[in-house]
Amino acid sequence: MSKSQDARGIALKLLAEPARAELEGDGGVLIDRVASLDGATSGAIAFLANPKYRHQLQSTRASAVIVEPRFAADTMLPKLVTSNPYAAYARIAALFHPLLPIAPGIHPTAVVAASARVAASATIGPCAVVGDRASIGERTRIHAGCAIGEDCTVGDDVVLYPRVVLYARTVIGARTLVHSGAVLGADGFGMAEEGGKWLKVPQFGRVVVGADVEIGANTTIDRGAIDDTVIEDDVKLDNQIQIGHNCRIGAHTAIAGCVGIAGSVRIGRGCQIGGAAMITGHLDIADGTVISAATGVFNSITERGVYTSTFPALPHREWQYVASIMRRLRSFADRIRALERERRGQGE
Amino acid sequence: MSKSQDARGIALKLLAEPARAELEGDGGVLIDRVASLDGATSGAIAFLANPKYRHQLQSTRASAVIVEPRFAADTMLPKLVTSNPYAAYARIAALFHPLLPIAPGIHPTAVVAASARVAASATIGPCAVVGDRASIGERTRIHAGCAIGEDCTVGDDVVLYPRVVLYARTVIGARTLVHSGAVLGADGFGMAEEGGKWLKVPQFGRVVVGADVEIGANTTIDRGAIDDTVIEDDVKLDNQIQIGHNCRIGAHTAIAGCVGIAGSVRIGRGCQIGGAAMITGHLDIADGTVISAATGVFNSITERGVYTSTFPALPHREWQYVASIMRRLRSFADRIRALERERRGQGE
Amino acid sequence: MSKSQDARGIALKLLAEPARAELEGDGGVLIDRVASLDGATSGAIAFLANPKYRHQLQSTRASAVIVEPRFAADTMLPKLVTSNPYAAYARIAALFHPLLPIAPGIHPTAVVAASARVAASATIGPCAVVGDRASIGERTRIHAGCAIGEDCTVGDDVVLYPRVVLYARTVIGARTLVHSGAVLGADGFGMAEEGGKWLKVPQFGRVVVGADVEIGANTTIDRGAIDDTVIEDDVKLDNQIQIGHNCRIGAHTAIAGCVGIAGSVRIGRGCQIGGAAMITGHLDIADGTVISAATGVFNSITERGVYTSTFPALPHREWQYVASIMRRLRSFADRIRALERERRGQGE
Repeated sequence: MSKSQDARGIALKLLAEPARAELEGDGGVLIDRVASLDGATSGAIAFLANPKYRHQLQSTRASAVIVEPRFAADTMLPKLVTSNPYAAYARIAALFHPLLPIAPGIHPTAVVAASARVAASATIGPCAVVGDRASIGERTRIHAGCAIGEDCTVGDDVVLYPRVVLYARTVIGARTLVHSGAVLGADGFGMAEEGGKWLKVPQFGRVVVGADVEIGANTTIDRGAIDDTVIEDDVKLDNQIQIGHNCRIGAHTAIAGCVGIAGSVRIGRGCQIGGAAMITGHLDIADGTVISAATGVFNSITERGVYTSTFPALPHREWQYVASIMRRLRSFADRIRALERERRGQGE
Repeated sequence: MSKSQDARGIALKLLAEPARAELEGDGGVLIDRVASLDGATSGAIAFLANPKYRHQLQSTRASAVIVEPRFAADTMLPKLVTSNPYAAYARIAALFHPLLPIAPGIHPTAVVAASARVAASATIGPCAVVGDRASIGERTRIHAGCAIGEDCTVGDDVVLYPRVVLYARTVIGARTLVHSGAVLGADGFGMAEEGGKWLKVPQFGRVVVGADVEIGANTTIDRGAIDDTVIEDDVKLDNQIQIGHNCRIGAHTAIAGCVGIAGSVRIGRGCQIGGAAMITGHLDIADGTVISAATGVFNSITERGVYTSTFPALPHREWQYVASIMRRLRSFADRIRALERERRGQGE
Repeated sequence: MSKSQDARGIALKLLAEPARAELEGDGGVLIDRVASLDGATSGAIAFLANPKYRHQLQSTRASAVIVEPRFAADTMLPKLVTSNPYAAYARIAALFHPLLPIAPGIHPTAVVAASARVAASATIGPCAVVGDRASIGERTRIHAGCAIGEDCTVGDDVVLYPRVVLYARTVIGARTLVHSGAVLGADGFGMAEEGGKWLKVPQFGRVVVGADVEIGANTTIDRGAIDDTVIEDDVKLDNQIQIGHNCRIGAHTAIAGCVGIAGSVRIGRGCQIGGAAMITGHLDIADGTVISAATGVFNSITERGVYTSTFPALPHREWQYVASIMRRLRSFADRIRALERERRGQGE
């Protein structure tokens, strides 16, 4: 164990390279954890990403900080300087909080089909079930109680947290994380009306998820009706999102919690969709579009930009007035028109 | 194996009867799958349900199509003609994509109470649990990791996909499908305030689900407080729907994803409720009502019709203006009134 | 077995004390169940909490009723009189519907780590998994298929219904109930943008849940990024709620189904949040605040009160007019201003 990396921490200078940042000040200070500026104590490294918290640079008890060049002069603390402190923080935090090692192998209570192919370096947890002809990649972790259907393909270095369900033929790309309770590949909501009753329309497309995707807890992604539902690389999905059949979510798009996306929606690359937004079926959303939280999207968006449709909450009585007056807007239109007609009459 | 049904497919003429359609053109053409007009290649049968895609009849590479009589002349392809092409498609798709056979019996890792009654033709999957006195019907499939509580009654030909939970005394009718992660029979949200604290109100009604129902992934239906929560026959529920205690959902009603229905709501027969709509407690919704996506329903609906309360998203700046002006509507009202008073003054 | 408590029920007089109510009339009448006024028959005790149902006091077939003093004279039935009939009902209902006894012990199919500490009076159900160093309190019930991560602490008299997931290091206080499908401690939604890609920000705070909390089916609560996500004592959460990382929910707050709360929100004590409301990130909500169903909260609330932002559904055509006129509000403002200018001109 070297002087710069011992039980008491890692020398700050050793963090500059993994953080992709420049060292300023004493590189020998020992860092043993990450923290917020506000909550840090001796031994911690903290970061400033939001200028709103700039004043905390003065009061923090951190041993070192991560800052942008423009704020470097604000503090005498040893520091890592970078144009992207949040990313630098993420990299250092990952050093201090790695995914814990886990013994490879199939737990004796797991039920793995004889025709399934499980990499020797993969882990299959207690009471997990792997169906016929499914394949599980290298170093992949299938946690307790997951159910992997027939003919699924799960790539390398994937993590499925406890109790994920993949219906048959689902595909998961490398390094993707799926959180507990997520259900991928359930039937899309398709039925034909016939004589006042519903006739189920078979759903036999797949769910195909790319690499480096993260899927939140209890999120659901339905299989395609005929063709596939596709989640491209590096898409980030929060919890309790619903994605209907035949959607395609473009690479690098991030979607916050509770968003509902109906069937056959195509969302472009690099979009950001706020929590509890909803998008109706068969729409196209342009690359780079930003949709505000709780916004309803009922038409395709062809130009990137920020889109919104929400009213902030008001005190109830004030809101009641606003809501009631909405129904009187037609009378406003009529009365303004009458006044204008009158005025023109007077002008003649 | 006859000439009209061999490894290369089924003769089109044999599909007319199950599709409830009339054959036109060469009934000997072999069909081996269903496809969309756009994605079809040789061997596929495709359908036209939405007139918007009528031009695809010219370009499709399908071997046969399903069309309404009014579009039959649009294509020289062999065809099935019917007033309901989508239903005909659904029937043919079901022929090509049947529910795969599965061996009946109780998996050795399943835990079935000695007092439970499981039909010999039923399947209980790995790590599924069936509680005391529960009964499982003929040919019913309980997939991996389901938990069936005490005294549940599950009918014939039911499918519970992996990881469905039925709390005690839940009833499921014949041919009903429940997708993964759905939870039926959890306690309704009932508590009494007492001295600034909450006192739990016991919830001892049941969830009673009819026949031919489909319940989507991660949907939740709470048990009744005293009486039952009831889902009538042929109701179709998409994913991530929440139905509160004591609701009754009328037969043939379809509800899209992410809808929230508070307690004691009665929804009529044959309603259609769009995604992410929400309905507050103790309301009655008339038979045949259509509620638009993302709409909030705060009052009972006594006349069937289409109901809406959503604003489509606008570019953010435009929306900000609209939202800000809302608070000025009272001033509009006052100013219009003042102008009218003035005008009347001048008229005298 | 005494005369006042036999197989046919419990004498009404014995219910007064547990109900914290005063007996009026024949205390010897035997009660064997609770019911609604409307649904009651002989042997049942029913309650009047909502004055709207006062007329049912005349028609009920209950053997006894629970009423406020002001309604006591409305009925000749034996009765329990109290200022809080709903709470009295809850206490009596709990007597008739106790949590059923369950044999303590670890089911042979459960997988409990050697280093876990499980109280002898606790129950671990079939196929449940308890991780390293987790501790499970006295009389606590971990139902079938739950997954308890490493280093979790679950208090005494807790109930986890089937298929609950606690990620590593989650803390659950005494007497808390968690319903099926709930996921506590999944990673918060944190990532840093770097070169057009997302870099995962490690989430290593915990979820800490207090005592006497109830958490609904399929609700998700994310672990903190650095510090903890905290649910204080006696918080009541309905189904399908999403609570982001670093939130703090104050004691005695009740939140209805489908609510989404983004990260780092602090909700005060004794708040009530209606179903399908949503709250964006980094807000503070004052103690005692009431937020209406389906309302969007985009700013902190510093004064307690009722807050709303929803429009009730209208017939679709009427709504279309309202929605279309919204975009014309700017023209209203301009035209009113022009008319006012004109008027002032005439006045000069």
